[in-house]
This record gives sequence, structure tokens and C-alpha cells, in this order.
Amino acid sequence: MRVEIVAVGTELLLGQIPDTNSQWLGEHLAANGIASQFHQHVGDNHQRIVLAFRTALARSDALIVCGGLGPTQDDITRAALAEVMNVPLDRDETIVEAIRAMFGARGRTMPENNLLQADVPRGASVIPQTRGTAPGLICSLGRKVIYAVPGVPYEMTDMFERAILPDLVARQRADGTTSVITSRVLRTWGASESGLAEAVGERFEALANDDRVTIAFLASGIEGIKVRLTARGDDHAHAAALLADEERRIRTLIVEKFGDIIFGVDGESMEDAIATRLKGRGLTLGLAESLTGGLIASRLVGVPGASAWFRGGVVSYASEVKFDLLHVPRGPVVSAEAAEAMATGARSVLGADIGLSVTGVAGPDEQDGQAPGTVFVGLSLGDRLEHTALRLPGDRPRIRAYSAISALDVLRRALDRDA
Amino acid sequence: MRVEIVAVGTELLLGQIPDTNSQWLGEHLAANGIASQFHQHVGDNHQRIVLAFRTALARSDALIVCGGLGPTQDDITRAALAEVMNVPLDRDETIVEAIRAMFGARGRTMPENNLLQADVPRGASVIPQTRGTAPGLICSLGRKVIYAVPGVPYEMTDMFERAILPDLVARQRADGTTSVITSRVLRTWGASESGLAEAVGERFEALANDDRVTIAFLASGIEGIKVRLTARGDDHAHAAALLADEERRIRTLIVEKFGDIIFGVDGESMEDAIATRLKGRGLTLGLAESLTGGLIASRLVGVPGASAWFRGGVVSYASEVKFDLLHVPRGPVVSAEAAEAMATGARSVLGADIGLSVTGVAGPDEQDGQAPGTVFVGLSLGDRLEHTALRLPGDRPRIRAYSAISALDVLRRALDRDA
Repeated sequence: MRVEIVAVGTELLLGQIPDTNSQWLGEHLAANGIASQFHQHVGDNHQRIVLAFRTALARSDALIVCGGLGPTQDDITRAALAEVMNVPLDRDETIVEAIRAMFGARGRTMPENNLLQADVPRGASVIPQTRGTAPGLICSLGRKVIYAVPGVPYEMTDMFERAILPDLVARQRADGTTSVITSRVLRTWGASESGLAEAVGERFEALANDDRVTIAFLASGIEGIKVRLTARGDDHAHAAALLADEERRIRTLIVEKFGDIIFGVDGESMEDAIATRLKGRGLTLGLAESLTGGLIASRLVGVPGASAWFRGGVVSYASEVKFDLLHVPRGPVVSAEAAEAMATGARSVLGADIGLSVTGVAGPDEQDGQAPGTVFVGLSLGDRLEHTALRLPGDRPRIRAYSAISALDVLRRALDRDA
Repeated sequence: MRVEIVAVGTELLLGQIPDTNSQWLGEHLAANGIASQFHQHVGDNHQRIVLAFRTALARSDALIVCGGLGPTQDDITRAALAEVMNVPLDRDETIVEAIRAMFGARGRTMPENNLLQADVPRGASVIPQTRGTAPGLICSLGRKVIYAVPGVPYEMTDMFERAILPDLVARQRADGTTSVITSRVLRTWGASESGLAEAVGERFEALANDDRVTIAFLASGIEGIKVRLTARGDDHAHAAALLADEERRIRTLIVEKFGDIIFGVDGESMEDAIATRLKGRGLTLGLAESLTGGLIASRLVGVPGASAWFRGGVVSYASEVKFDLLHVPRGPVVSAEAAEAMATGARSVLGADIGLSVTGVAGPDEQDGQAPGTVFVGLSLGDRLEHTALRLPGDRPRIRAYSAISALDVLRRALDRDA
């Protein structure tokens, strides 16, 4: 059963709104073991919608069409469905009554154009509305099927769960397919995408012809590289077991080559990893930031409950702020010595158990004779005071973002080393 | 010239990441007067990528393909291009050298699989990389063309602006399409989309049947509402004159209804507006941030040359940091008094001409008996000390982001008032 999603609306082509519907549908189809191999966006144009439907019917078994079912002149999905099915549109009196009743209940007069929403391609069945006015449609074409739902996300998700998913599952059963898909993302910082691919190369090759387990790499820019494992099993327990087994193998290969670069799984961010460790050990953190300019503090404050372990930070952007507020000795401020003094200063003036600092050159110009990308991380933890020197690539925003996650990773590794 | 966007990546079909690339491309094609009539998503599967390309070539004149150009085994866009063009892949030694040099500059050994990125379909031309390793490709097929770029957004946008857009514009000219489109975005903070639509309603109606000038509203979430004006003229001077005329009318209508809510145009951000004003008057700024946690500092440091006017900030997340470091009197820290004391403290300890502060409740829980969304902005400027009380909607990330831009807008208006 191959499902194709067709999102209808000129606003999608013009980039005026993001297409969250296709993303949501893709995620929920996959979670139910149903493959979606193609998505399309098409504008509010009759001929092009018909072309998009015909293209999708040629390469997929089922279409989910989102949008174009409303009451205005640019809502033309119904007419395009009728053309593809080669049937007329009939006005459905049950729907007419339902729409009239909905306006009546709100004490409003119904504009006549709302009745367009009661037009149904002959032979299609109706998915009743529970949240809005436009009903959904299920249109059979031989062994294939088109589901049409409104583009309003909470109407679409309701109809998907109530009518489309059960129908798809029933069709899959009739086809004899009952598999379940599950996946896990391993989040890494510190290795390149190509390096990771090489580390797990043997598994990648071994799985090339395996239709049960797949590995993919997602370069996520400033958040590192994600390794996604997906397993298809006969039922939930089977899929989970396949996934757990593959995760064990892949983790071993990655750790053997790169050490402890996996900082989290799925939606877990670097700051979540820090929060777990600090909270678990009852430690508080204070920051001194120069080129990152509050970026690290901002990420940490984004974690709900941060007040339990985050004291605050000093954004010492001007050198005098480093000297006067953090008691950094006068001298070059892009240096290992300055980073260590900033960490000591932050720990002291913020009354924290740990001081973490970043100083460096974000560019575009050099500073203190140092090139853009030269960054020093300072850490004052227990009776240790240390620094890490980094050379980071990219333009100003990337150097700042890389500095922020790199500094947090320095802290994560130090906390794990001491644990 | 009909452009189709094809985004490649199984992660898009599975809904694991949003397709921001197609949205960005759609918006930027439209802004340049180039139609995109279809978008497709396809997974990392050779046969299906080939099918998606052939489908797109049948109904569009130009394809922009995003993704699948990386160094790993699942990056197969190059091979699919070669199949559609019916040519072999040749290894390009110039690209090999560029990739080797990039790894060398970072002091890292290049994993061999990176050389896959140097494979070029015979006859294609190369879009050199300036930000990563995988080059882009321009593949001509008769009168049609496929542009292939990496899926990493900042590499994609760079190649679009540097190579694809100029090539598309040249092709349009060669086709005899000579009208010129120009557009301008007015950036506002403080009015709703429907309020703005009402303010400019008379122009919106007047332009309904005008095929030269259009107005669109783009709700941009935490960055306010954008009003985009687009004009199509016979040449650059004509388009510019139409645009300037419309901008004058629209600005007048907005200012009449809402006052000074337009803070910038096009890519100008709120922090750019602050930078211009502070630099122009030779003033320096210091911050005290509580719930925003460094978000404001981080935005300001994002402006190149910020060191000329930005001293730094104190992220006083724990109450004790407010009392001890900023000398805020002990008492409730979510209050107008605390905001003013924080502004005074920031100005003093950071040695700045202006102190700006934010304190409030980001949620999810209330604090000091105040509900989430309760925010106070403090400002110490010249001999004035004042506060602004805000009630902001949304969840924790939105309240924090709204607080940051609102505080900067308070400063912008104060600087303009005093100018």
C-alpha cells in the first residue's frame, strides 16, 4: 500500500505558509507502518490539480488530498475529483442540512456559497465533519482510493484518525500486509557525516538488501549529525526488538571509532543532556559568554525547570566587562588564559558550583591577531580549571552557534568523566 | 518559465523534519516573478527519484532539486541525474582538490567517501561550494534544466542566490519575458494581521483587479507581521516607481491607524534597527535579562560590528544574581520596581550609556503570584527611568521570544522619541 499526499493551495507554492499537514501525515502514516513514497504541492488551478491527481494515481495506491474543500471560489478540489473520477457532482441534502444547522447554532446567516461544500462526486462516500463545515470525501477508483480532507490542520487530523487510517489499515489487511514501523534517532556531536557513515559502513552494507531495518544520516547543521534507525516488524514487539538490536550494534561501532559522541536520542537536545546531568548531581552552573553573546544561556533557559540548576550568566562582550566584572587580568581576551579566568569569574560572581566560559573570534574580522573561528572554552569544576581550544568553520552565525553547542559538549564530557 | 521544486530525503516523507527549503524557494521565486506550479517530496530511492524527475520534466521547464548530494551511501541524487540525462558520472579533479583542501584547513583527515561529492554527470556544470563540501550542479536537458543543490538550508540559499536565480532570470529574458518584478517588505511589530488588513483595506480592494501591484500579509510569528508589496513593470525604473508610489500610500495608512509600528524593510531586523540608532548617536547599551535568558544579547551580538555599541549583559536567572550582582532590592522579582532596578544595575555594572532589562514569567508555572506571560521591561536612558508592563500570549518559547523583540521595540521607540 503506497500512499501519496497531495497538498492543494497556492499559498504553499508561494511559501506563505509551511506545509505542516504533509509532515504530520507522513509521521503518522510511518508510525502505522504505511509507506508514503511521494508528496506533492499544487496550486488552486483546476487543470494542474487534475494533473497532480493523475500523476499520483499512476504511481501510488492511495492519495490523501489536503485542502481546497472550503466555500470560496478558489476551493476547487471537489470539481477536480469529479473530473478524475469522470462523474458529475451531486448536491448532498444531508450535508446541506448539517451546514445550515451549524450556522443556525451559532446564530449566523449562512452565506450561499457554503452550499458548494455539499457537492459530492457521484459514488464517493462522505466523512462527516465534527469541527468545521467542509466534509471529507472517500473516492474509490477501481482498486485505488482518494481521500480528500480540509487543509485546516485540526479538521484534517480528526478525519485522518477517525476515517482514513481505519480505512487504510483495512485495505492493507485485505492485501495481507500487517507490518509495524518504529524508529529511533541517535544524536551526535563532534564527528562529520562522512566519518559516521564510514564508522557504520559494514552495517550499512549488510542492510542494503534488508527490507526490515534501515539507517540514514541527517546533517542537522548546528545541532550535529543525527543517525536514524528504522525497523519494520510483524507487530510492535517484533519491530521494537529489531530496533533495539540494531541500536546496540550501531552504538558500538560509533563509540569504538569516536568515543562518547552520542549525547541524546530522538528529541533530546544538548541542553537537555546538560540539564539531566546537573539536576541528577545537584550542581549549579554559571556562564561567561563573549562571542556567543547569551546564546548558551538562552538555550539553557529554554529547558523548563532550568532555575533548579542554572544561576545565570555574564555576557562580557566588551573587554572592559571581562576585566571589571569577571576580574579577568588585562591582556589579550581571545586566549586560553582569558577563557580560564572568565570561567573562574563566572563561578565566583554568580555563586555557582561550575563556571563555563567561551571567548573567541566570530568574525568577519580577526581580533587580537586571531582568525575568525578561533575559540577557547574555559571550565571551572571542582578543583579543576581547564580550557579547550577549538577551530570552527563557517560564517559569523555558524561560528557562534558551533561555539555554543561545543561549549555545552565540553561540559557534558567533563561531567561524565567525573561521574 | 515554470519551475518545479523536488525535495529529496526519506526524512521528509517520514515527517521527521519540516521541508523549509521548498517554502523558502517558493517565496523567493515568487518575489522574483517566477512561477512554481508544483512541489514534490521523494525518498532516498533511486527508481523513485528518477520517476519524480521525469514527472517534473514533463510538466515544468526547470527543476530545483534539494538534497541527496552529501557524501554518504544514501546520497543518490547525482546518480539519478546521470540516469535522467543518460550520461555517465565523471570524477571532477577540481572538486576533489577543493574538498581535500577544506579538510586540510581544518586539520582533519578526509574520509574517502567524500570523493563521491566530486562526481559530476557528464555535461553538467558545477556550482562551487562556499560553505560546505558538496557542490551544486546545473544540468541542461534540451531547453529544460535541472539545478541540484544540497539540502542544508544555508548552502541551498547561497547557491540559489549566487547561481540559480541569475540563470533563471537569464533564461526568462531569452524567452522574451521582459517584465521586471520588484518587491519590498515592510516589517511591523505590534499590530495583528487582521488589524493591518483592515488598515490598508481600501488599497487592497482597489488593487484586486490590478495585475501590476499586489499586497500580501505574512504572519512571521515572533518577528511580527510582514506586509509585502510587489510591482511588475516594463523595466526596472517603471517597477521601482510603481513600488515607491504604493509604499507611500501603504505607509500612510498604517501610520494613521497604528503609529510608528514599521521598524524596518526587507531583511532589516529589530536588532538592525537598534544598531543603526545606537551607532548613529554614539550610545552604548547594557542588558539585564531574566526570562529571556540571553536571547536579547544573542540577537544584538548577531549584528556585525556590535562591539561599537553593545557592552554586554547580565543573565540574572536566579533571584540572588539580581540582588547580588545587579543590586536589585530584595523582594518580588517579577515587578515594575525590579525591572527598573535591573535596568539601573545593568547600566551601572556594565558601564553603559543605556540600561535595558526584562523580567517576567515564561511559564509553564506562575511565579511571585504572576501568571505566565506577565512581563516587565525596564529602561534607564539619560535621566529617565521607566518601565513597560506587557501581557504576552503563548507557551514558554513564544513568551520568551515575544519578550525579547518587545523589549527591543521599547528601546527603539524611546530612542526615536528622544531623537
